Amino acid sequence: MKYQRLTGLVAAPFTPFHQDGSLDVGRVAEQAERLIADGVAGAFVCGTTGEGPSMNVEERIRLTEGWIAAAGARLRIIVHVGHSCLADCQTLAAHAQRAGATGIGCLAPYFFKPRSVGDLVGFCAKVASAAPDLPFYYYHLPSVTGVNFPMVEFLAAAAERIPNLAGIKFTSEDLMDYSACGRFDGGRFDILFGRDEILLAGLALGAKGAIGSTYNYMAPIYHALIGAFERGDIAAARAAQARAADIIAVMLRHGGLAAGKAIMALVGFDCGPVRPPLHDLGPEQRESLRRELETLAFPIQS
Amino acid sequence: MKYQRLTGLVAAPFTPFHQDGSLDVGRVAEQAERLIADGVAGAFVCGTTGEGPSMNVEERIRLTEGWIAAAGARLRIIVHVGHSCLADCQTLAAHAQRAGATGIGCLAPYFFKPRSVGDLVGFCAKVASAAPDLPFYYYHLPSVTGVNFPMVEFLAAAAERIPNLAGIKFTSEDLMDYSACGRFDGGRFDILFGRDEILLAGLALGAKGAIGSTYNYMAPIYHALIGAFERGDIAAARAAQARAADIIAVMLRHGGLAAGKAIMALVGFDCGPVRPPLHDLGPEQRESLRRELETLAFPIQS
Amino acid sequence: MKYQRLTGLVAAPFTPFHQDGSLDVGRVAEQAERLIADGVAGAFVCGTTGEGPSMNVEERIRLTEGWIAAAGARLRIIVHVGHSCLADCQTLAAHAQRAGATGIGCLAPYFFKPRSVGDLVGFCAKVASAAPDLPFYYYHLPSVTGVNFPMVEFLAAAAERIPNLAGIKFTSEDLMDYSACGRFDGGRFDILFGRDEILLAGLALGAKGAIGSTYNYMAPIYHALIGAFERGDIAAARAAQARAADIIAVMLRHGGLAAGKAIMALVGFDCGPVRPPLHDLGPEQRESLRRELETLAFPIQS
Amino acid sequence: MKYQRLTGLVAAPFTPFHQDGSLDVGRVAEQAERLIADGVAGAFVCGTTGEGPSMNVEERIRLTEGWIAAAGARLRIIVHVGHSCLADCQTLAAHAQRAGATGIGCLAPYFFKPRSVGDLVGFCAKVASAAPDLPFYYYHLPSVTGVNFPMVEFLAAAAERIPNLAGIKFTSEDLMDYSACGRFDGGRFDILFGRDEILLAGLALGAKGAIGSTYNYMAPIYHALIGAFERGDIAAARAAQARAADIIAVMLRHGGLAAGKAIMALVGFDCGPVRPPLHDLGPEQRESLRRELETLAFPIQS
Repeated sequence: MKYQRLTGLVAAPFTPFHQDGSLDVGRVAEQAERLIADGVAGAFVCGTTGEGPSMNVEERIRLTEGWIAAAGARLRIIVHVGHSCLADCQTLAAHAQRAGATGIGCLAPYFFKPRSVGDLVGFCAKVASAAPDLPFYYYHLPSVTGVNFPMVEFLAAAAERIPNLAGIKFTSEDLMDYSACGRFDGGRFDILFGRDEILLAGLALGAKGAIGSTYNYMAPIYHALIGAFERGDIAAARAAQARAADIIAVMLRHGGLAAGKAIMALVGFDCGPVRPPLHDLGPEQRESLRRELETLAFPIQS
Repeated sequence: MKYQRLTGLVAAPFTPFHQDGSLDVGRVAEQAERLIADGVAGAFVCGTTGEGPSMNVEERIRLTEGWIAAAGARLRIIVHVGHSCLADCQTLAAHAQRAGATGIGCLAPYFFKPRSVGDLVGFCAKVASAAPDLPFYYYHLPSVTGVNFPMVEFLAAAAERIPNLAGIKFTSEDLMDYSACGRFDGGRFDILFGRDEILLAGLALGAKGAIGSTYNYMAPIYHALIGAFERGDIAAARAAQARAADIIAVMLRHGGLAAGKAIMALVGFDCGPVRPPLHDLGPEQRESLRRELETLAFPIQS
Repeated sequence: MKYQRLTGLVAAPFTPFHQDGSLDVGRVAEQAERLIADGVAGAFVCGTTGEGPSMNVEERIRLTEGWIAAAGARLRIIVHVGHSCLADCQTLAAHAQRAGATGIGCLAPYFFKPRSVGDLVGFCAKVASAAPDLPFYYYHLPSVTGVNFPMVEFLAAAAERIPNLAGIKFTSEDLMDYSACGRFDGGRFDILFGRDEILLAGLALGAKGAIGSTYNYMAPIYHALIGAFERGDIAAARAAQARAADIIAVMLRHGGLAAGKAIMALVGFDCGPVRPPLHDLGPEQRESLRRELETLAFPIQS
Repeated sequence: MKYQRLTGLVAAPFTPFHQDGSLDVGRVAEQAERLIADGVAGAFVCGTTGEGPSMNVEERIRLTEGWIAAAGARLRIIVHVGHSCLADCQTLAAHAQRAGATGIGCLAPYFFKPRSVGDLVGFCAKVASAAPDLPFYYYHLPSVTGVNFPMVEFLAAAAERIPNLAGIKFTSEDLMDYSACGRFDGGRFDILFGRDEILLAGLALGAKGAIGSTYNYMAPIYHALIGAFERGDIAAARAAQARAADIIAVMLRHGGLAAGKAIMALVGFDCGPVRPPLHDLGPEQRESLRRELETLAFPIQS
């Protein structure tokens, strides 16, 4: 099975909620336009940043449809369909195919954990088979799921059992494994880099595409980074990476996903609150976040 | 708010699936009769042993109704409503109340993890408020969820914010915390012991009730243990505990939940396969399990 | 090889240091008298509480000699000889035998970690062989060493390879394993309980002896606990355990080992500072510790 | 305080032992000549690869003297002085300065763990002050020590308290932190990259020097990597990195440090056995290692 390679920056969009926490699909269009204007290649919908596991199946379906309607052919839409329940994964996968998504991604099941690569591949194969015409990307996020097999072993086992396997969203620090995956079988899989703060390291090791949350609000910095790297100007690439890393450090200090959503508001795309068990930044934290970002000359919308 | 105290043995039933993996509610009645015949006080439905997180919401609802219909007033039915998605928790909680359950239990959300006791209590409060007339039990399972706050701090924070808080299903090795919870505020909460293999340690520290998977198939051993403990015959209690622990060690060596389901088949209550990402024992493992249990004089049905 | 069984309470003494951090062997005599007066059976010297790994070999030798000189035959002196370097373990073991200790204990090596039970047993066998006339106790402390094999497997492998194996100092929460060790081969090994805060659980599961840091300053509470348990008065045993656990909770909240040393000062046995990387309580923490202990009617010496 | 910057490749030598496990300083000279011939800049002696924590203080002193005698001014000799006991660290540090070492390195204490950056810095400051004329490098190895503070916070706190602080041996996957350390205060510290298998990622993020075990036996591959990177030929750099990573993967599959020592024998520098609790490869493993390396065209000496 052949797919168009997935390259460039893919944003993992924040999901817009109303103040009461209900889904606000109406705000997706402006998010999509922003990504398109920024030259982003795609959107990874309903993933971690999108709080997919905090939405029910019906909401995930509605949000998927919202993104496909808003982006048309202008963004590649990869729908995350992971769940603790295989049947729900399959429901979401089948829907994504019907609705016209570009591909699907799937986390390891996040309650019962597969105890072997074989069990993980077996689970993924059943999910992938529910969307047989779409490329399937395994979403490797060991820091959250606790499922941490070498991905090069996953590829070796999955290549034969998942006909529509297209690659991995690789969100782990194990760059030796990352590099091995990129070289696996002549480099035929897309190993999408998932650590925005060290994208330059990924590029050096051969990354061609990346998925991350900060591509929502500072894609231009990363495009500068990639451009510099490609023309051999490592010093300029490093400077761009440092700038992004400084901003990410501020974000992480202020609370991770909730801080990311607060930054979206600062750049003019208020996505509303996060859902429990996460909690939003308080007014003082928001103000501190704004101040620290201003110090870094981050372009805040006022 | 006042509830009947939850004491004695509460089984966490295995969920019966057809060979194709679909839910087989029809087999619940015989499970319930077995528990009643064994003098078990209640059933904790759709929990870990019941593979609740591997079922979708509609299946969890059907299974809950199956248990309530089968047991009537003869078993106390506690319905586990935990999920990564709060809205699904609330749907399940509201249904449990409508359907006539005795109480609800809830795991920490198992994708995004609360970062403070306050965030955990906040999540639980929203779930508990969807079934305001039922006692609420927090299900503490840090080895799986990774959420591991001292439960005595949870009680201190939750006592005021969750009016229907009734206690904790405490499945952790931290017995100092267990003991502190049992003594909290004059002992007004039910702290249900969740480690069958050391129930005797729990009794010594004051346990009055327990929830576990092995009460499905060897409740008589535990009743002997409890009886001996209550009449002061520690040696006999220890012997009963040793017998249970030996059987549990065999079960764990053969694969945990899947081995437990295989034991159910050996005692005449075949509950079918486990769902991915778990996998069933192969024929050789089943045979090895049977042989080792026979060595221990475990009463197998042939 | 036959040894006298090791039963009753064994204290793990704090090591006295001068204000400049140098070893103050001169204060050992009064520590020993206190333990003897309290009816404690032995002392586990140079262990974790004794900051053994923070002392050099010469200091550990001097301290060992100090304890043996002070206690004579009135306390059983078990010398901890664990180290990251096998040669140092052997030096300390051989010295302990020469100096007249009652036995030796040894942690898993705490830099390079054995990767299998066999490697752990192999290391211990080499240590034990340096003190062939003394009983050898493996010191199981997985929370610190990260070495966490089932101890019942250790016994099975070590029973044949370590002729002077006498048991385990078991400082872990895994009470199922604890119980299995106690029952191993007819109960021929001493499995010394290492969690003071739940000693009652250990007794229920068959513990005959225990090693801990709080037996330095509140042995009478534990003797009351044990006495009540032995005469079948579980309620009184539970009350004594609760009292000890409340005091331990205060100690842990104030900083573990350093707080333990501060409590020693409060009861009239000032052992001086802790060594880096630990740090002593500040004046405010000491005052808070004193106040909280007074609330619990802990007998402070003024 | 000003030091010559530490750049280029620094090998972490394996320590030669006789077949009976005793130290074989006589073999150091040939190791040193090999490193010099390979253009390696320095040696990090008595570290993890050198099994420093498995040697006693006297052995570490003798080995240090052996390296200084063998290398003269031709290699920069950094002596690892870390220990669980501060006094031993200081003894080793003072000796290193007296003996003419180029610098010292120190792990976090590996039994009691510092609970704050302040406690870690406090410990390091006392060690560094025992060799005040030598540059001090903190050795960050969280996967083994369990001590894992952000190193950029360590630098911020240590810069003022450790006058001879010169940098960090950074052996962690957290490349965002790595990058932040490299940029700290204008880049005035040497942040030595410690993951040979992804050195290229380190170079991209600004690494100027690296310390690792595989520079003992395949420095030429890494020099090719660095050369290619410096002239902007990323493809060639990536190919060299891939070659090194493939060899490292074989080594790791065969047992880590013991396999590294077996590779040394294969290239003609037999360093003898490893010390317990590690164990040497058996004959079959050695043969498998040799075969797999030959497949990769690794230059084995026959």
